[in-house]
Amino acid sequence: MNADAALKRGWLDELADVLGARLSTATAHLEQHGQDESYHDGQPPEAVAFPETTEEVAQLVAICARYRKPVIPFGAGTSLEGHVAALSGGVCLDLSRMNAVLDVNAEDMDCAVQAGVTRKQLNDYLRDTGLFFPIDPGANATLGGMAATGASGTNAVRYGTMRENVIGLTVVLADGQVVRTGGRARKSSAGYDLTRLMVGSEGTLGVITEVRLRLSGQPEAISSAVCSFPTLEGAVETAQMVIQSGIPVARMELLDEVQMDACNRYSGLDYPVQPTIFFEFHGSEAGVSEQAERTGELAQACGGTDFAWATRPEERSKLWAARHAAFYAALGLKPGSKGWPTDVAVPISRLAECITETKQDIAESGLIAPIVGHVGDGNFHLVFVIDPSDDAEMACAQALNERLVARALRMAGTCTGEHGIGYGKIDLLKQEHPDLLPTMAAIKRALDPANILNPGKIVRLDG
Amino acid sequence: MNADAALKRGWLDELADVLGARLSTATAHLEQHGQDESYHDGQPPEAVAFPETTEEVAQLVAICARYRKPVIPFGAGTSLEGHVAALSGGVCLDLSRMNAVLDVNAEDMDCAVQAGVTRKQLNDYLRDTGLFFPIDPGANATLGGMAATGASGTNAVRYGTMRENVIGLTVVLADGQVVRTGGRARKSSAGYDLTRLMVGSEGTLGVITEVRLRLSGQPEAISSAVCSFPTLEGAVETAQMVIQSGIPVARMELLDEVQMDACNRYSGLDYPVQPTIFFEFHGSEAGVSEQAERTGELAQACGGTDFAWATRPEERSKLWAARHAAFYAALGLKPGSKGWPTDVAVPISRLAECITETKQDIAESGLIAPIVGHVGDGNFHLVFVIDPSDDAEMACAQALNERLVARALRMAGTCTGEHGIGYGKIDLLKQEHPDLLPTMAAIKRALDPANILNPGKIVRLDG
Repeated sequence: MNADAALKRGWLDELADVLGARLSTATAHLEQHGQDESYHDGQPPEAVAFPETTEEVAQLVAICARYRKPVIPFGAGTSLEGHVAALSGGVCLDLSRMNAVLDVNAEDMDCAVQAGVTRKQLNDYLRDTGLFFPIDPGANATLGGMAATGASGTNAVRYGTMRENVIGLTVVLADGQVVRTGGRARKSSAGYDLTRLMVGSEGTLGVITEVRLRLSGQPEAISSAVCSFPTLEGAVETAQMVIQSGIPVARMELLDEVQMDACNRYSGLDYPVQPTIFFEFHGSEAGVSEQAERTGELAQACGGTDFAWATRPEERSKLWAARHAAFYAALGLKPGSKGWPTDVAVPISRLAECITETKQDIAESGLIAPIVGHVGDGNFHLVFVIDPSDDAEMACAQALNERLVARALRMAGTCTGEHGIGYGKIDLLKQEHPDLLPTMAAIKRALDPANILNPGKIVRLDG
Repeated sequence: MNADAALKRGWLDELADVLGARLSTATAHLEQHGQDESYHDGQPPEAVAFPETTEEVAQLVAICARYRKPVIPFGAGTSLEGHVAALSGGVCLDLSRMNAVLDVNAEDMDCAVQAGVTRKQLNDYLRDTGLFFPIDPGANATLGGMAATGASGTNAVRYGTMRENVIGLTVVLADGQVVRTGGRARKSSAGYDLTRLMVGSEGTLGVITEVRLRLSGQPEAISSAVCSFPTLEGAVETAQMVIQSGIPVARMELLDEVQMDACNRYSGLDYPVQPTIFFEFHGSEAGVSEQAERTGELAQACGGTDFAWATRPEERSKLWAARHAAFYAALGLKPGSKGWPTDVAVPISRLAECITETKQDIAESGLIAPIVGHVGDGNFHLVFVIDPSDDAEMACAQALNERLVARALRMAGTCTGEHGIGYGKIDLLKQEHPDLLPTMAAIKRALDPANILNPGKIVRLDG
């Protein structure tokens, strides 16, 4: 090819040189990759790339750097704040073909995976090793996506979030360079903690292509329990006492009476329509019994009734299936509706107050918005069950969401416990950390001077 | 004052305007503040400031920013890699007068302290709350210093390091601005994790003036045990099995036979001169018994002998006092000597091999260098017991240290598990993460463009 022809070729041609048929501009691909599971307006990218190796990602990013074209990493598309919308066009890097488990070190309880491996895939892979990866955000997200968004979920109260369980990353930087953060030692104080800077950076500081994870031992015994409470305060107080007593509860999920009603209908259950906590305990046979017994006593002291055990695996599965279907159950409350999930977290001492005020606010608005909470972390979710074409309803939900965040911030909490910022909460982040935004922007500019990495998420750069 | 006189006044005059007599240029102060507990050459600052509030620190840093004068934060001076040496002059900020506990939220199990509060001071303060702060690096360091260096220590295996236990910081940035990272919610995904970027940044990205910490419940029961092993492999294998079995051991400290000999002499004990593990268990009465029993069985299966319980508090104290005196005990092996402590960490599966090779290397060198290890984390320390005026000995220790790090890196480990980089390991960090240094430097430049914050530590900037 002569120099003239080379000059006329564009960035998409160059991407296609690397990927061939694995670069797509088909409308269906574009539509699907600009939209996550949230209510936020999607924005299709100009192309979708399906790389299979870190080296390919590096080549793609280097090309985009030369052309100053945006790069948006995409895992399973299960994020909730518009993380994958191609706000300024560019190419979506769909990492789902990077789905190899790279190594498992059973003795050291760690493993490395390509970014596109999903958490269920990893746990299937690990089944015979006696180990598992505990973080469970509900959706079968990719581990790269979970690292990029700092995911957590139902059992973070025991096992921590991605921040505590990612020990190293392979990252493609904004200029296409490949770097490796962290390592295999269980701890290190070797320089700035770039692993944790990348975790939760939502693709704005680098493209995560490989993740090294800390694994946990499969518990010898698991048991679950359900307990209803006449009041929300009683339920939250129980959770608080469980934490304070040092009971290493694995999951402790609060569902309000609206959500319980929805779950009963959707999953064919007949629990009391009251604030309810689902518990799960992991440990030795003796340890699990002790934990459960002590928790039952605390629940009773707080007015809990019907403390019911589910020791058989199938009972337990039914229970947690109902919990995980909470979102769809909520949608069932209003046929034809869509869900707008949001989350905040507050210190646990303020949790009952925050939820109570929020429920009152919801009641006054006339919207349907069930609540579920990872109550051990002080984190709770609302799902606004709405018709997106109804402007009044949307405006009402928007206002409720803003008041929810303002309330959480007033109670020393955060605008998001685990869903992240994306572009949906970018203005709310400003409310929470106005003093930090210049520092976040300085880091973004230092690592991505041309603003090509998932632009318009977390921090908006002016220049 | 007229404009001419103002121009003639220097940075020290301006600092004195803020602090009055709390700015010192007395030789004794300067000498003391340029030297940490390591063997590294100190370098006195030009002045020592004793601020009492965040606002004063902000004023001081703003003045230094205008004059481009270095600012070196100082806690208790117990760091080990030359962290406080004023390599380019400037002012040392001694934060020891910022020693107020700001709040304790017992219900939420968190607290906030000024940077100069020491860990023992905090735990004394917390005694009646049922809570404690678990991180224990041995020295009675300040919590600001522990945050800045990402400290950990003997019970990180159970409670994590500072990275997992700092939930928020007040930081004075390089231009004198005050920012607050993190918050009081137990988890948040609100933007870049600046808390964790600051933890372990050794004063090079900001001056930490306040620390918000996650607290733990005081264990209902504590028990300790000691077990000797005929071989190092047996000891390490026991530790590995304890971790893999999910036994939530609180401390698990390995001492090699050289260190045991030193401890016996120094602390008047009569343990076998063999590789030995000190264990500590926290939990309920029943839980502690179960943990201890299972650990005893594992130790026995690995050849452990003399598994001895210390259930009485005074026995336990004696045991751990001996462990904490290990450094001084080591110095006792060679009267008039100094200690050069160093540490690495490797995946636990490589720990026995790494220690064995290292011991052989020490033996061939003729130096005295006992080993203690936080064996649950794969982290171990050497203390070179040397005469700093003996050039040949120093060169020998230097070479041993370099081979130690090279060995750890070859085994997928890190050049420092918990001591940090300071200026002592700055070249070794380059060996571990050559690909990351440009990113670390870019972050340093973005947050501290004039390079006034503890310059010459972690990353050296060329410009």
